[in-house]
Amino acid sequence: VLTNLMAANDDFAAQIRVYLNAHHVPMLNLIGGPGCGKTTLLEETILGIGEDVRLAVIEGDIATPRDAERIAQAGAESIQINTNGSCHLDANLVLRALEALDLARADLVVVENVGNLVCPAEFDIGEQAKVGMLSVTEGDDKVLKYPLLFREAKVVILNKVDLLPYVRFDKTRFYQDLAQINGTAHVFEISATTGEGMDVWFDWIRKCTHISVPA
Amino acid sequence: VLTNLMAANDDFAAQIRVYLNAHHVPMLNLIGGPGCGKTTLLEETILGIGEDVRLAVIEGDIATPRDAERIAQAGAESIQINTNGSCHLDANLVLRALEALDLARADLVVVENVGNLVCPAEFDIGEQAKVGMLSVTEGDDKVLKYPLLFREAKVVILNKVDLLPYVRFDKTRFYQDLAQINGTAHVFEISATTGEGMDVWFDWIRKCTHISVPA
Repeated sequence: VLTNLMAANDDFAAQIRVYLNAHHVPMLNLIGGPGCGKTTLLEETILGIGEDVRLAVIEGDIATPRDAERIAQAGAESIQINTNGSCHLDANLVLRALEALDLARADLVVVENVGNLVCPAEFDIGEQAKVGMLSVTEGDDKVLKYPLLFREAKVVILNKVDLLPYVRFDKTRFYQDLAQINGTAHVFEISATTGEGMDVWFDWIRKCTHISVPA
Repeated sequence: VLTNLMAANDDFAAQIRVYLNAHHVPMLNLIGGPGCGKTTLLEETILGIGEDVRLAVIEGDIATPRDAERIAQAGAESIQINTNGSCHLDANLVLRALEALDLARADLVVVENVGNLVCPAEFDIGEQAKVGMLSVTEGDDKVLKYPLLFREAKVVILNKVDLLPYVRFDKTRFYQDLAQINGTAHVFEISATTGEGMDVWFDWIRKCTHISVPA
């Protein structure tokens, strides 16, 4: 049964890639634990990146429409998926959300997955890249404790670096652990609330919108 | 299939209750997101509560034996379960871990579940009480976004209150949201790293060890 579920998911993910390709819009899958700052990152990206990159955001949460409301308030098109208990987004849900968005007005789709370092990493939702996110307040031991996400992530965002003076977080250990399982991931050290490091992240986002979308 | 899985889990949970009752030891199920401070809380509880309460700890992680090593270093009996990908502990795994512990030397068993606000709350592992844990750095909107855990928790630990001056966290909103879905949960505001609020938590733990274990 699990195998069938995964095969069905991968079919929907393939449909998503075709759909995005037809609309010339790439898609990122943003994954991190609860409260690592995913929604704040997206708000500040929408507000700060300028009008040359128009984001559309699919928000995944177990309950509440709060995050999609925050994104809309920041000025981007957004749609909320409530999984009603499920711990991750699957490709079927994402495809239906994509079809409800006006992709002609978007340069990039970002899916903010359910706040969870585990299950979302297991499901291909047709994204061009997984973006793994961790905040320094969560501790420097998380890369090897949640290896799947950090192995699959094309980039890793290390958020809340403004709080480094107040918490125990050994950056050397973090980078050593990451190098052990993922030799190519690029890391962005940022503070979404103070704006530190955001310009480099914006540059990467701009490059994403120029990536040709594989069919 | 999911129904069968849950029924099998509940059978093991019932066996656990019988087993704990026979050994006169209650068990707590500690659940919170990655990096909310579960292991630090247990370390500081072991070190601070005094020799009248002997803890035994079952550590659940996807990978690495680090947390059980930290608990052993703090001076308590511990055993590590690595789920190798699975996002929660089930009662079968916990029963096997319990049988490997020397319960004659323990007054209380604490299970530190996999770092995840979602899936662990769905599985009864035979505990007397679920302890929900959140840190202020995760934001004040988590109670309604992860309602199952906060509805089921007998007590809620709000950790990292020493960082309140540096983050946006509206305690009024947190308490209002919690009251909306759980009118009886007792909240402990603590900082496991500074020791703030830990004495009241220790008192509650002491009371737990005197709870008669229902068969």
